[in-house]
Amino acid sequence: MDVAAPLSPTDRSTVRRGSKRARTDRADLYAVLDAGLMGHLGVQLAGAPVVLPTGYGRRGDTLYLHGSTGAATLRAATDGAPVCFTVTHLDGVVYARSAFHHSVNYRCAVVHGTARLVTEEAERLVGLEALTEQLAPGSWAASRRPDRKELAATAVLALDLAEASVKIRTGPPGDDARDVEGPDRVWAGVLPLRTVTCEPEPCPLLPPDVPVPARVRERRISSRA
Amino acid sequence: MDVAAPLSPTDRSTVRRGSKRARTDRADLYAVLDAGLMGHLGVQLAGAPVVLPTGYGRRGDTLYLHGSTGAATLRAATDGAPVCFTVTHLDGVVYARSAFHHSVNYRCAVVHGTARLVTEEAERLVGLEALTEQLAPGSWAASRRPDRKELAATAVLALDLAEASVKIRTGPPGDDARDVEGPDRVWAGVLPLRTVTCEPEPCPLLPPDVPVPARVRERRISSRA
Repeated sequence: MDVAAPLSPTDRSTVRRGSKRARTDRADLYAVLDAGLMGHLGVQLAGAPVVLPTGYGRRGDTLYLHGSTGAATLRAATDGAPVCFTVTHLDGVVYARSAFHHSVNYRCAVVHGTARLVTEEAERLVGLEALTEQLAPGSWAASRRPDRKELAATAVLALDLAEASVKIRTGPPGDDARDVEGPDRVWAGVLPLRTVTCEPEPCPLLPPDVPVPARVRERRISSRA
Repeated sequence: MDVAAPLSPTDRSTVRRGSKRARTDRADLYAVLDAGLMGHLGVQLAGAPVVLPTGYGRRGDTLYLHGSTGAATLRAATDGAPVCFTVTHLDGVVYARSAFHHSVNYRCAVVHGTARLVTEEAERLVGLEALTEQLAPGSWAASRRPDRKELAATAVLALDLAEASVKIRTGPPGDDARDVEGPDRVWAGVLPLRTVTCEPEPCPLLPPDVPVPARVRERRISSRA
């Protein structure tokens, strides 16, 4: 889409709790997804939900996931059953004057849908490139591409970004007036959190004269909206 | 329990993929849970899984969750249906010589079970204290406790840590020998990630002479096993 369509809430993607935090701009969905490294995939397995951390990559309005062809959760995600994929960024701890109003500042995208097993070779490569680049920008060009055996061991799933919701909380605590105006001088505010990168740790098997490339050395993890 | 019992894997809590990363020591489960701020709760709602970020707190072998009594996901979690609660820490991006072996270093705890709605007043307060202290250590003592109306609006859930699995990945990439020994000088190693706290942002409504308390100013977020 040239111009991103707004998110059209369905029954299950309508934000009911804390609806003042809901965003309906598709650009917000893209921003939350694109800033993440991992999401949490929920599938139904043997009658119970299972939630596992999962890498992903986005191309347009398609989210690509992958996993071992032998993984039960991946099989459960591709048998036509509904799945849910959630990406959350924690931006701060919200300290309030009351225990009740303690909260977190966050950005969260929740995608509902049915995953499609990608079988066409070209799209499988598009998906794997998207996944690799989301995790490690520049790595698809720099590293050896998957060979036939590796491709055979990898299931690539596609999830349409058709049904999704975004919630974002920013700003100070929402304390009651009685607590704000009361005599107790309890500190209230936000302790911002940020994900930072540390000094790269070369593989012990790497020749010592291979320099850390800029794509690793200068990498910054997106944080805070 | 005085001495933590090992995790006794059931069928669904047995780690099948990447089983060399599985830990069966209950202390590992506690460590992963205690280091987190938020988890992802998976419930089945109207026939589909829903995964939402959720705060929590642990007391012994009980995990407490909470939410608005009006939230559909909370109601779905307490009607006797199975739930899954997952806490993940992302410790590093693993750059490999091959796209296939790119990975992440992480610590992840997955808890399966059926949540129990806590109705006894004393245990509800234990749960809310655990939740508040997990998010904001020191805040339960420092801030106003929930009043009757706030308590009535809050559902407290308990989830037994009876059925859980822990996976931890650390260390360099697991590249194939052909790539390690090959002529391509592709950088490989780990880019460690860490969650840090930034300068506290006082609530605009706070009198300017209320100092930032040590529990906020000196707070460090646990990271890396």
